[in-house]
Amino acid sequence: MLHEKLKDYKIILASQSPRRQQLLKGLDIPFQIISKDIKEEYPQDLKKEEIALYLCELKASAFNGEIDDKTLVITADTIVWINGVALNKPSDYNDAVSILKTLSGNMHEVITGVCLKTKNKTHSFFSLTKVFFKKLSQQEIEYYITNYKPYDKAGAYGAQEWIGYVAIEKIEGSYFNVMGLPTRLLYEELMKF
Amino acid sequence: MLHEKLKDYKIILASQSPRRQQLLKGLDIPFQIISKDIKEEYPQDLKKEEIALYLCELKASAFNGEIDDKTLVITADTIVWINGVALNKPSDYNDAVSILKTLSGNMHEVITGVCLKTKNKTHSFFSLTKVFFKKLSQQEIEYYITNYKPYDKAGAYGAQEWIGYVAIEKIEGSYFNVMGLPTRLLYEELMKF
Repeated sequence: MLHEKLKDYKIILASQSPRRQQLLKGLDIPFQIISKDIKEEYPQDLKKEEIALYLCELKASAFNGEIDDKTLVITADTIVWINGVALNKPSDYNDAVSILKTLSGNMHEVITGVCLKTKNKTHSFFSLTKVFFKKLSQQEIEYYITNYKPYDKAGAYGAQEWIGYVAIEKIEGSYFNVMGLPTRLLYEELMKF
Repeated sequence: MLHEKLKDYKIILASQSPRRQQLLKGLDIPFQIISKDIKEEYPQDLKKEEIALYLCELKASAFNGEIDDKTLVITADTIVWINGVALNKPSDYNDAVSILKTLSGNMHEVITGVCLKTKNKTHSFFSLTKVFFKKLSQQEIEYYITNYKPYDKAGAYGAQEWIGYVAIEKIEGSYFNVMGLPTRLLYEELMKF
């Protein structure tokens, strides 16, 4: 079992996301949270999973020279991809409206990159989930932004909030990946690491 | 918005499932919980959604003659369907092992039927989600049953527990439907009701 395989490691989750913390906890392994302040910038020619992988590796590289043989750092980055571009966190109310209008009635892709890092080894991988939104009314968009203030969320929505309940017609792939961590894949990769 | 449309109704969720209560709460409408003790039996020639619809309507019929014009009862029933049969709640440890071995490495269907009932109107509908399980080891199956005791769950698993995190490779459809309530569809049907 995973907790036996990892019993000699100190595991660090480098993420401030309460959702990621909850998801990793669900794998029944002990870990601590140490997150570093990283400027999430990436080369503009990167696309889709290249962005998520670049950013989770960037977050992991912040631990270079700081960790010993028996420490395993887990970092992750989730992006929302639609019409050939990655959606960022909304800058203000109008930007959030505009982002949700882009998602309304369309399919977008949520990609989470995960990086596992020890002193001597770095391994990264990703998972992609397709999310199909119903057509949202202006009233629904305004209700959500006003009441849930999704300014800290790439793509301006949280799948586990009202808008996720109301707008997601179906997904193809992992739901937990949309929440921020592809738990099944992470479990497999940790078992093999 | 939904809470405005329903503002003249007293809404009752007839379910003891904490997951259903949480999901309905996520739609931002006020409701109370009144559940009745119903024997969940159905004619043996029913299949798939016929079972879920029969059982949610049966649960709703328990309110016949008890509700007034301004009460709306919501009932639901979720079944797990694989290889032409509905999986029940496991009767004991060995039955749970056997059920999880059936799900291991296979796709199964989770179907939730929902019934909306007022004094003069009954409307029911369902949602179907395909769930793909990875191949589970004997050790993983035993670990889950021992630690999570899924004896109250049809199909012997909870998607929001360790096994859901570890075993579900992908889904096609609504994740909340797997949890027990197809929130997006319910929202649409309530808006039209």
